[in-house]
Amino acid sequence: MKEYLLLTPGPTNVPKRILEKTAIPMIHHRTKEFQAILERVNFNLQKVFFTQAPVMTFAASGTGAMEASISNLLSRGDLVISFSAGKWGERFRDIAKAYGLDVKSYETPYGEAISAEQVRQALKQHSSAKAVLVTLCETSTAVTHPIREIAAVTQGSSALLMVDAVSGLMCDPLLMDEWGVDVVVCGSQKGLMLPPGLAFAALNERATQALLRSNLPKFYFNFTETLKAIKKNDTPFTPGISLIVGLAHALRRIQAEGLDRIVARHQAQAQAICQAVKALGLELYTDSACASNAVTAVKVPSGIDGKDLLKRLRQSHGIILAGGQGKELAGKIFRIASMGAIDRQEIQLGLTALEKVLNEMGWKGNG
Amino acid sequence: MKEYLLLTPGPTNVPKRILEKTAIPMIHHRTKEFQAILERVNFNLQKVFFTQAPVMTFAASGTGAMEASISNLLSRGDLVISFSAGKWGERFRDIAKAYGLDVKSYETPYGEAISAEQVRQALKQHSSAKAVLVTLCETSTAVTHPIREIAAVTQGSSALLMVDAVSGLMCDPLLMDEWGVDVVVCGSQKGLMLPPGLAFAALNERATQALLRSNLPKFYFNFTETLKAIKKNDTPFTPGISLIVGLAHALRRIQAEGLDRIVARHQAQAQAICQAVKALGLELYTDSACASNAVTAVKVPSGIDGKDLLKRLRQSHGIILAGGQGKELAGKIFRIASMGAIDRQEIQLGLTALEKVLNEMGWKGNG
Repeated sequence: MKEYLLLTPGPTNVPKRILEKTAIPMIHHRTKEFQAILERVNFNLQKVFFTQAPVMTFAASGTGAMEASISNLLSRGDLVISFSAGKWGERFRDIAKAYGLDVKSYETPYGEAISAEQVRQALKQHSSAKAVLVTLCETSTAVTHPIREIAAVTQGSSALLMVDAVSGLMCDPLLMDEWGVDVVVCGSQKGLMLPPGLAFAALNERATQALLRSNLPKFYFNFTETLKAIKKNDTPFTPGISLIVGLAHALRRIQAEGLDRIVARHQAQAQAICQAVKALGLELYTDSACASNAVTAVKVPSGIDGKDLLKRLRQSHGIILAGGQGKELAGKIFRIASMGAIDRQEIQLGLTALEKVLNEMGWKGNG
Repeated sequence: MKEYLLLTPGPTNVPKRILEKTAIPMIHHRTKEFQAILERVNFNLQKVFFTQAPVMTFAASGTGAMEASISNLLSRGDLVISFSAGKWGERFRDIAKAYGLDVKSYETPYGEAISAEQVRQALKQHSSAKAVLVTLCETSTAVTHPIREIAAVTQGSSALLMVDAVSGLMCDPLLMDEWGVDVVVCGSQKGLMLPPGLAFAALNERATQALLRSNLPKFYFNFTETLKAIKKNDTPFTPGISLIVGLAHALRRIQAEGLDRIVARHQAQAQAICQAVKALGLELYTDSACASNAVTAVKVPSGIDGKDLLKRLRQSHGIILAGGQGKELAGKIFRIASMGAIDRQEIQLGLTALEKVLNEMGWKGNG
C-alpha cells in the first residue's frame, strides 16, 4: 500500500514507535500489567486535560464521547444551548436533538468565532438551561472558540459547559479546572498522535453531580460505571487494549516534551503555515484573531478547481490535505493540519508540493 | 513487558502478521485506498456472518453493538423477552432494561442451555413481544444455545431474534440467513483474531424494516446512517482505521482456511481440551450436549484454591486462563479458550502447565 503524508486534521500520521507499541503481543485487560498501564494512562491524561478529575477512556471515536456527555448528564426535555459555527458544533447540537432535548441553537457564520457575550445573552434569555455546548477547535473552519471567556460566563450560571475538544486538545490551550470547564471530550487521532478508536471524557465536580439526575438511556457509554471502574484501574467493558498500550507511550512522549512546549509548537507551526500560504499569494479563510493552532483553512483561489488541487497533491506528491466540509465549504477551502506529530519538515514538504501543484495548474499568485 | 500465552475467551493472542498490519503507517479514511479496504472487509464479513446483508463495523467493543441492536430496532415500552443462563445473557437483558423496555426475563440455571420449547412457550404467553434476546456462546458457562432451533420458532412470530454472537461466531455454527436469525452482533477480539475495539452488527430484511419504527435515542450507533454509509464504502464517523486494516488481513486468512474448516477446528480443539481435562481427573462444568467450541469450563477440584491455581499458571508458566465470572462462579470454575488463533500446540502447553501446577498444589487426580 502506498504511504502518504497526512496533513489532515485527524487522522494524522502516527509516529512509528507508537505504532509499534500498538502491535505488541496482546495482553489481557484483567491483569496487574494492564491495570498498571491504565493507572499511568489516567494519571497522564489528567495532565493533558489540566484536571484533577479522572479521565474516562472509551473504545469509540470522539463522537461517542460527545454523545456520552449528553446521555449521562441530561434528562428528557432539558433545555440546552448549542453554539455552532461549523460542522462539529452542529454535530454536538444534533446529538442533543437526537436525545429529545429542548435545543436552542445559536449559529454563528462559518469562519467566525462565537463570543462570550453571545453566551451571556443566551443564558439570560434561557435561564433554565442545563448545558451549553461548544467546540474548542471547529476543525471545519479552523476556528478556535474562546473557551476561557465562555467558561467565565457559564460558571456563574447553573448550565454545565460541555466542550468538544476532540481536535483541539493540546493544540489550542484548554485548562479545564483553572477555567472552570465542566465537561471536556477528546479523541485519540489528533493531538494524542494515535490511530482513531479511543474517545475520552472528563467531568468536574459539578458535572459529576449531574450524573445523579440524568434519566436518558445509556449503557456502553455509562459514565457512572466507568468512573467506578477507574477507581480500580479497570473498565466496565473490554477496553481498546492495543490502542491504550500505544496511548501509554504517546503520553510519555507528551510528558517528555512538556505541555506548554507542545501548545507553543502547534502555534508556531500554524503561524508558519499562515505565513507561507500568504507568501504564495493565497488568502486565509479564518481571521487570525480566532485561528486555531491545530489546522489552517485556506481559500481555494479563483480559477483553481479545489478538488483537482487535492487530487494532484495526493497522486503526484503523496500528500493528503483536507478539503472543505459540507455544501458551504466543499471546493471553496482546503485545510492543512499542524496537529499531533506533524512536524515542520512535513509541513514544509506539504507547502512545497502545494506551490508546485498550483504552478502546474496555472496559478500566478498575487503578483 | 512479559509475554503471556492467552488461553482466555477474548482477548486472544493475535497472530504476529495481523498485529503488523494494524501498525502500518496511518492511512486516511476518506480515500479510495481505504474505501477499497472497507468494501473487501464488508464482502468478507458477510461470508463470516453467512448473510447477504451488509455487516456494520463500529469502533467499540461488542457491548456497543448489543446496545445498538436494542436502541435502533425497538421503541420505548416495547415488550422483549430475554433468555439468559449466564453473565452475557444478563448483559443483553440489562441493556434492554436500561432503555426502558418491558423486559420479560427467563433465566435458565448456569451451565444449562435454553431450549427452543421454552422460547415457544414464552412467545405464546407474550405474543406482543417485539424481540427475543439470546446468546450464541454464553462464554461465562461455556454453553452454546440452540440458535437454529430457536430461530425456527421466532421466524413464525413477529418477534425479532437478536443473537449476541460476540464470542461464538466462527467457533460455533451460526448460519444467519439460512436459519432466519434477524440480528447478529459480534466483536473483534474472539474468532476474528484481532485486538478488541471493533464491534459488528448485521440485520436481515425483517430487522431492517424495524429501523423505521424505533423511537429510542441513538447517534454514534445509528444503524440507518451506518447502512447508508456502507453503500458508499464509508462510515458515518471516523472508523477504527488500524484495526480495520488488520481485519482485512484476518478475513483473508479466514477465507483461505475456509469457514467450515474453522468451525471443525474449533470443535476438535474444544473436544481435545475436554478429553485432556477428564484424563487429568477433572470434571467439566458444562454438559457435553451444549458445550461450546469456543471455550471449555472446568470445575475447580475440591481442595484446590482456584484463584491460586490461575496465579501459579500465570506467574510460573506465563499462561493465562480465565476464572469464573460473577459471585456464582468465581473460584468454582476455570475456563480454557480454544477460539480464534489459539492452536493445538498452545492448548497443549496450557494443559501440560495445568497438570504440573495441580500436582504442585497436591492434587492427586481421580485415582
